[in-house]
Amino acid sequence: MNYDQIFDSAIERLHSEGRYRVFIDILRNKGAYPNARCFAGHNGPKPITVWCSNDYLAMGQHPKVIAAMEEALHNVGAGSGGTRNIGGNTHYHIQLEEELADLHGKESALLFTSGYVSNDATLSTLAKILPGCVIFSDELNHASMIAGIRNSGAEKKVFRHNDVEHLEQLLAETDPELPKLIAFESVYSMDGDIAPIHAICDLADKYNALTYIDEVHAVGMYGARGGGVSEREDAAKRITIIEGTLGKAFGVMGGYIAADAKIIDVIRSYAPGFIFTTSLSPVLVAGVLASVRHLKQSSAERDGQQAAAALLKKLFADAGLPVMDTVTHIVPLMVGDPVKAKRISDILLAEYGVYVQPINFPTVPRGTERLRFTPGPSHTEEMMRDLTAALVEIWDRLELKLAA
Amino acid sequence: MNYDQIFDSAIERLHSEGRYRVFIDILRNKGAYPNARCFAGHNGPKPITVWCSNDYLAMGQHPKVIAAMEEALHNVGAGSGGTRNIGGNTHYHIQLEEELADLHGKESALLFTSGYVSNDATLSTLAKILPGCVIFSDELNHASMIAGIRNSGAEKKVFRHNDVEHLEQLLAETDPELPKLIAFESVYSMDGDIAPIHAICDLADKYNALTYIDEVHAVGMYGARGGGVSEREDAAKRITIIEGTLGKAFGVMGGYIAADAKIIDVIRSYAPGFIFTTSLSPVLVAGVLASVRHLKQSSAERDGQQAAAALLKKLFADAGLPVMDTVTHIVPLMVGDPVKAKRISDILLAEYGVYVQPINFPTVPRGTERLRFTPGPSHTEEMMRDLTAALVEIWDRLELKLAA
Repeated sequence: MNYDQIFDSAIERLHSEGRYRVFIDILRNKGAYPNARCFAGHNGPKPITVWCSNDYLAMGQHPKVIAAMEEALHNVGAGSGGTRNIGGNTHYHIQLEEELADLHGKESALLFTSGYVSNDATLSTLAKILPGCVIFSDELNHASMIAGIRNSGAEKKVFRHNDVEHLEQLLAETDPELPKLIAFESVYSMDGDIAPIHAICDLADKYNALTYIDEVHAVGMYGARGGGVSEREDAAKRITIIEGTLGKAFGVMGGYIAADAKIIDVIRSYAPGFIFTTSLSPVLVAGVLASVRHLKQSSAERDGQQAAAALLKKLFADAGLPVMDTVTHIVPLMVGDPVKAKRISDILLAEYGVYVQPINFPTVPRGTERLRFTPGPSHTEEMMRDLTAALVEIWDRLELKLAA
Repeated sequence: MNYDQIFDSAIERLHSEGRYRVFIDILRNKGAYPNARCFAGHNGPKPITVWCSNDYLAMGQHPKVIAAMEEALHNVGAGSGGTRNIGGNTHYHIQLEEELADLHGKESALLFTSGYVSNDATLSTLAKILPGCVIFSDELNHASMIAGIRNSGAEKKVFRHNDVEHLEQLLAETDPELPKLIAFESVYSMDGDIAPIHAICDLADKYNALTYIDEVHAVGMYGARGGGVSEREDAAKRITIIEGTLGKAFGVMGGYIAADAKIIDVIRSYAPGFIFTTSLSPVLVAGVLASVRHLKQSSAERDGQQAAAALLKKLFADAGLPVMDTVTHIVPLMVGDPVKAKRISDILLAEYGVYVQPINFPTVPRGTERLRFTPGPSHTEEMMRDLTAALVEIWDRLELKLAA
């Protein structure tokens, strides 16, 4: 048994496929987002513009969020010091769970250390509590949902992306007496499309299935109060469990679910990934509280983001760049090759001070490698015009195809 | 299919066994730890003393940690805004990984959002990378290690707690050609005992197995620089992977592993629980950096903790309380019944302003329910004498047995 050889070949596979990941070493400049500094391979930090952050609304830099975190830091200190059950349950946690339950019109909510853990812990626990449960999962569901479903040991039936006919076919062929759970996302973050929520809920009603929606790329950004697409489409009350993140539009870190009090109590009481882990730092929780409360009342950030996304899509399309057709704030440019996607990204960073990460397998299917831009309310029209010109130059240099 | 009924009975099981968990709503007072405020069931916050925190050295309140977090908050903002690969790799993360690698004398380190995720992601990924891997797991390993092993799908052989003869027996009967991994903890947090690290490494050498040690209840607290029991016993270089937490003695939040650069690169490149999650907030990372650096140079906190633990054990023993024999900073009092453990805890909180959580199944085996005290450098002798007197009174009131 030669362990080294196995590890070497695991890494070599990534190099040979052109998808070995190199992390770019950056620091954002608070108050000047999307401006940042890049450390890698330069003499001293070099200024860059960040185009691929999921701090979609720049709330991670919002004065209210910073002030709330600073206050908590001085009030109670750095970490929680324990699990929620053993010393780590602070008043901030309880307040935030109430705030998030209210955001989604649910009885209760439950915090996790990340959105990934929310999905993994909730799905794996729920399916274990329901004997014989069958999970119906959209084929493009996030890795964390796939992990939770796999770790549950439940039977999984995968339906074609956003395809309610296929979903119904799978539901209809399943024993009516078995518990069922339909798991899907509202906004799919790499394609920027949206699930047919009401149609899925209709099927859930018809076949007596529970529903689980991942709104991590929607909370804070859609709905009058930032309750996500389920709020915008007045569907939240039809969904059994709504899952969200505190690390994207809310700008901080962590994840949560919102549901009936009874379901929250079950997950709280049975999920190892919730029970046996140090709770979120109260400093983070205090920041999220300020962020959620602000975005419940202010739509300026949401409006600014939508305007920026619309403008960037138009500039890309007008220049003939292969922008993918999306109905959301996400602006992907299809490249279709991992080496080229990385090359474009490298040139943008080295020559133009533009930071956008190439998106390769396993984040997207092989052959659909892309660049994914997330313009927000702080990206100016000038930045967008500069970006478009840079891309056109690179497309030309690498002899890639532009539309007529 | 009546979902409500299933959820109801899941909760009812917990009530009937006396192990339904009620989270105590507290806020610690920064600068005055272990003092805190309790919110539950009172008119306004009530002052309490915390005896069950895993902020073992009160580093979550240390001025250097608070200052570093405040600086990062104002320098770069609240959250990282992305995964490590996509926008969330800050200069703080890179510096902390270097600092942690140095702490354990390893080439590299890798940050995770929690210790739980470190164990789950690393163990499940490692065993998948090594085809046919057999994992040898101590029977008292933490839930997160059990989750990682189970999620790997690898064959698992459980050895009796700290029993190297049993471990050898299991190793000897396993195909020599198969990859092997021995997974264990240094300090077992509920019993306070310590693994025979060198003896386990001897077996690993003999049977060509990798080793994985969980040092979450040891890093910061043992070894001349806080590198854990493996540092104290000069065994770190014999261990393949050392796992630790940033949320206990380091006082903040997060987890990590340290190992050869090649292994770190494999986990970094293949573990979904690392790849697909928003990275730790730079504010947390900055705080941990200050904490790790401080504890590398200062032993005052470690010495204070050991002195406090020794005194509390002596006071409990002198009073005839059933203190468990431990060689570490952890001071458990055996109760052996979940209802009584909760009752003692409730009286301590309501009448004495003492906060110590009852430890019930599944955290410990049924029939070994206990109270677990974690005295630290900030707990005074007066606090300990008051606590001992309170416990003796309650033991008497509940007609529990004291030693002669």
